[in-house]
Amino acid sequence: MALIVKKFGGTSVANIERIRNVASRVVRDYDQEHDVVVILSAMAGVTDGLIQLAHQITDTPDKRELDVLLATGEQTTAALLAMLLKSMHYPSVSLLGFQAEVHTDAAFGNARIHNIGANRVRDFLKQRHIVVVAGFQGCDAEGNITTLGRGGSDTSAVAIAAALKADVCEIFTDVDGVYTADPHICKRAQKLPRISYDEMLEMASLGAKVLQIRSVEFAKKFNVAVHVRSSFSEEEGTMVVNADADMEKMVVTGVTSNKNDARITFKQIPDQPGIAAKIMTPIGEAGIIVDMIIQNPHSGGKTDLTFTVPKVNYREAMKIAKTVGRKIGAKEVIGDENIGKVSVTGVGMRSHSGVAAKMFSALSRENINIMMITTSEIRISCVIEEKYAELAVQALHTAFGLDRDS
Amino acid sequence: MALIVKKFGGTSVANIERIRNVASRVVRDYDQEHDVVVILSAMAGVTDGLIQLAHQITDTPDKRELDVLLATGEQTTAALLAMLLKSMHYPSVSLLGFQAEVHTDAAFGNARIHNIGANRVRDFLKQRHIVVVAGFQGCDAEGNITTLGRGGSDTSAVAIAAALKADVCEIFTDVDGVYTADPHICKRAQKLPRISYDEMLEMASLGAKVLQIRSVEFAKKFNVAVHVRSSFSEEEGTMVVNADADMEKMVVTGVTSNKNDARITFKQIPDQPGIAAKIMTPIGEAGIIVDMIIQNPHSGGKTDLTFTVPKVNYREAMKIAKTVGRKIGAKEVIGDENIGKVSVTGVGMRSHSGVAAKMFSALSRENINIMMITTSEIRISCVIEEKYAELAVQALHTAFGLDRDS
Repeated sequence: MALIVKKFGGTSVANIERIRNVASRVVRDYDQEHDVVVILSAMAGVTDGLIQLAHQITDTPDKRELDVLLATGEQTTAALLAMLLKSMHYPSVSLLGFQAEVHTDAAFGNARIHNIGANRVRDFLKQRHIVVVAGFQGCDAEGNITTLGRGGSDTSAVAIAAALKADVCEIFTDVDGVYTADPHICKRAQKLPRISYDEMLEMASLGAKVLQIRSVEFAKKFNVAVHVRSSFSEEEGTMVVNADADMEKMVVTGVTSNKNDARITFKQIPDQPGIAAKIMTPIGEAGIIVDMIIQNPHSGGKTDLTFTVPKVNYREAMKIAKTVGRKIGAKEVIGDENIGKVSVTGVGMRSHSGVAAKMFSALSRENINIMMITTSEIRISCVIEEKYAELAVQALHTAFGLDRDS
Repeated sequence: MALIVKKFGGTSVANIERIRNVASRVVRDYDQEHDVVVILSAMAGVTDGLIQLAHQITDTPDKRELDVLLATGEQTTAALLAMLLKSMHYPSVSLLGFQAEVHTDAAFGNARIHNIGANRVRDFLKQRHIVVVAGFQGCDAEGNITTLGRGGSDTSAVAIAAALKADVCEIFTDVDGVYTADPHICKRAQKLPRISYDEMLEMASLGAKVLQIRSVEFAKKFNVAVHVRSSFSEEEGTMVVNADADMEKMVVTGVTSNKNDARITFKQIPDQPGIAAKIMTPIGEAGIIVDMIIQNPHSGGKTDLTFTVPKVNYREAMKIAKTVGRKIGAKEVIGDENIGKVSVTGVGMRSHSGVAAKMFSALSRENINIMMITTSEIRISCVIEEKYAELAVQALHTAFGLDRDS
């Protein structure tokens, strides 16, 4: 008899028929004497629809009120599933974020979970209820409704699983697990039976849209076993767990790419202490998150400085950059939206050398020029021309021996 | 500087354009230094749409979960209005039922308000915020979401006005006040500048769909001045207040009709003590509310018994009645869905005689047969053939001198 937390994403509850499918999966576990807590997202498209509604009011909707509006999406699906389960004669109850005591900070639109009381969840489980919790939402210390950002229902699920010390947190989604690469890009990508929290963190932040990053951080911190699997098949998916010796054997676990960033370069600025701060401070103050930064010294006391920003902030960042550029006497400020980032990730890198060299030569063999490089303990990322992103993924996937036998 | 509670119904917030209209009315009061609390219904049609969604799940949706679902309607409009006010640079905040501490019993779908804390409402008013409260919803002692039944936002508004000791509770609706008769039926109906709580109670229960009955009960109990007016015009509407000497002068204040009931007659049942109970008990147990009951003794120890039930319960009531009829040896059980009820109401009846006689002769002049009669201290109602309902209203309106000079 286990305690299972099951989270279903927007496509899994997109209509009444699919909610029936969710119910049938849920009651199967319940019938096997397991305790079941279900976390739901809003129906696919609903959150975007609500944002559009808010934008009919104003271009910059107040964040507190937007959260009140958005929270209705998960409230709807939670009520519908609990209603359906009850109509099937299963004891069930829906709980909203505040009712499940999902306590967050007051960062509306992107709140972080502080702690989860879940007392009512526990009480209802004791009474053998299937507890349905609205994902994505919580409440701050004042009782205001907050939301946890895109993909926040994943974090709701993992945090609730942690609070309840659940045996497993199953994340049902429209893919059937975590792959060595995006199967749409790389035909010979393989599903990974297991992946470590750290690898998942790197891959999540690099564009593998399987799990919200914070949910993985939570899972790692509280050691929650997360099972990523498809809501449309019975197959086992991928377990996200602590790294072990077996995993270390594999040098690279996954190859990812994204096209979310743009690049801004200051040409020939004075090579003086404090110059980078002069550039980065106004960018940071505008709330724009800079990812990579590199500086190339020139001759004559001049240097080039290049950094990447999210594409959505590119125009704003360029405007700021041009103003700063004039102030500090840059020769020119140029931007480039046509960049991509390709990365290889693996806990095995900690104990294997030569990974970077192998990566660079694989790209070089395809005549792909590397513009910027960053590394972490378990990841190497290269910025390349956007048009080569798919080719780079395929080449690296082959080079690191990840191709499935077909 | 007054404290004004303003409630806007579903047609007043039916789309973004109309919500803008609401905002402009609200800020006008705020700009005149008044404290303003706004109570909103869901957009017109939304509640019905949500009920239909629930019915796609099951014919008999669980009431607790239905309330969770329905509460999203008012949550949406409250968030949108607060968002709009903020975008217009007015300090504003939305509060849901539980946040405004609208404490109710646990009668899901038709909960009654026990008390209203409204501490956060008061705090925000002190900070000169326009407070927008989601109508129709509250929470029970366990923190479950409850709803107050059709028209419940009226009751939310009056109850909050009572809790805050507001100077006035304005109910904005799609009619511009309370009329001596439905202007669609009676062209010469006049708008009443004032009406007493008791008259409004009688008229509300008789089909004048202006205010939810419970809201009037609340207003009477806590002596809240209610101003019923149009959200689409600037004209003064109707004040609902305590009866005074001036009102007593008018014998009849309003003529109303409805076609919501059906009639069931047991022919020739034994005229014995307890026979009515035998009939009414199973009807009551089915949750069907009986309005009028009359008994006509026959010769030979037999009697006829007739009662009315809401049309929506007619089929079910007839089924029960036929079963009971066989058991107690009724000659036959007949039903009639084609009935209407016409009523005259006025606090003046307390001090004037001859009102009933005047009513009966007015109907008789039109050859309208009276099937059943009930009276209260300030109302006389007659059941007539449905097809005469409009004619009866017109005839009574004229007979009691209510016709507007035109």
